[in-house]
Amino acid sequence: VFPDAAFYGSDGQFHPDARDYRLISAANWSASARYAGRVHGDILLIDIGSTTTDLIPVKGGIPGAGTTDFERLCRGELIYAGALRTNLATLLRTVEVKGCSARTSSELFAITGDAYLLLGRITAGDYTCDTPDGGPKDAEGAARRIARLVCCDLEELSAEEVLGIAAQAHRSQVDDLGRAIARLSGKHGLSRAAVCGLGGFLAKDALLELGMPFAQAGSEAISRVYPAYAVANLLEM
Amino acid sequence: VFPDAAFYGSDGQFHPDARDYRLISAANWSASARYAGRVHGDILLIDIGSTTTDLIPVKGGIPGAGTTDFERLCRGELIYAGALRTNLATLLRTVEVKGCSARTSSELFAITGDAYLLLGRITAGDYTCDTPDGGPKDAEGAARRIARLVCCDLEELSAEEVLGIAAQAHRSQVDDLGRAIARLSGKHGLSRAAVCGLGGFLAKDALLELGMPFAQAGSEAISRVYPAYAVANLLEM
Repeated sequence: VFPDAAFYGSDGQFHPDARDYRLISAANWSASARYAGRVHGDILLIDIGSTTTDLIPVKGGIPGAGTTDFERLCRGELIYAGALRTNLATLLRTVEVKGCSARTSSELFAITGDAYLLLGRITAGDYTCDTPDGGPKDAEGAARRIARLVCCDLEELSAEEVLGIAAQAHRSQVDDLGRAIARLSGKHGLSRAAVCGLGGFLAKDALLELGMPFAQAGSEAISRVYPAYAVANLLEM
Repeated sequence: VFPDAAFYGSDGQFHPDARDYRLISAANWSASARYAGRVHGDILLIDIGSTTTDLIPVKGGIPGAGTTDFERLCRGELIYAGALRTNLATLLRTVEVKGCSARTSSELFAITGDAYLLLGRITAGDYTCDTPDGGPKDAEGAARRIARLVCCDLEELSAEEVLGIAAQAHRSQVDDLGRAIARLSGKHGLSRAAVCGLGGFLAKDALLELGMPFAQAGSEAISRVYPAYAVANLLEM
């Protein structure tokens, strides 16, 4: 369709075609990191999407992340949890509710989108994926799904108790994120971060707790499509 | 269809109809426990199915379990994990592989059926639910799904490494089961267990580690349909 298209590769170069598909595919994080490095200098770039979290150390403009997803999982550069689609049962094996510690159901009953909608951290418009039960993207629907995590309906738990479960999911995700940020910034000697993605609020929560300064990468709107914005800017440079 | 049908209720009585549906529905564990109590005396009955685990203290022939799923989750009488359908990501937040600790993917990539098939604890015939990827119920299919838990394909992990992940899922499930058994047997002063369900092997693993004696409830085949067998026997008594 576009005969003059340029293809960004994870080697940081533009290519006339996508024949070397391993270089071209999944290069999003590389583009974001290279551009963020040019704008913000040496930083830990944290991009939290609907499903996953990328943490990319950038020094001297060069992204220092592993080359495969497995390598990145091992180094703490990829956390397979995001702001919308993550099954709360993978974040919470037990929850404290009504003064007891209840094991959670291992089904796909509620997701991070439900927790953050109920906690007022995202809007219904931000909740762009399907709900696990096909129900509505509103506070009551989210509460009903979260209650099911401990096999309850909304007659069995108060609104406050459901909020408490959502808060524990947030706590679990931010704690894990904080551990990864502390490890990577220590390892690479990085003292600042740049944050993007629709789940950027989670990165900011963790960074504030760590006392680590950060910049927003792009405006709030740009931040959600940061890899595309980064590629366009890199091509112009 | 059966005008003379009798309906077992969780009150331990047979009823001429199912009008009081709260009493009749989800009474499986009650029937199993009452019958096992008659056969085995005071015991902790452990029934592990495809999806969940019921732990029911039985004393003097009376099941002493909570009345709602939430109550049972709080008391450790219901563990929402079973021998087939449980997402491995809910059992393992990280796995040790290739000398590193890798966070797992939170998707539904692999289930306990995959782990126990690969470990030789169940047969392909026992694997009666769907596979997460629609792939085959054989060792290679199971290994492929388990490798995806750390975003790998089978070129990236050796057979031994995949087995190691399966073993960690088993370890996690048996440890959790052991904690619940120890807590409930202590609380109710029960020194013996009875085991049933297709996941009975997991209960036996935990009981052997705890040094707690146990009986198999029914033959291996009967054990898998123990609630039905129990109701039939209770009606005869």
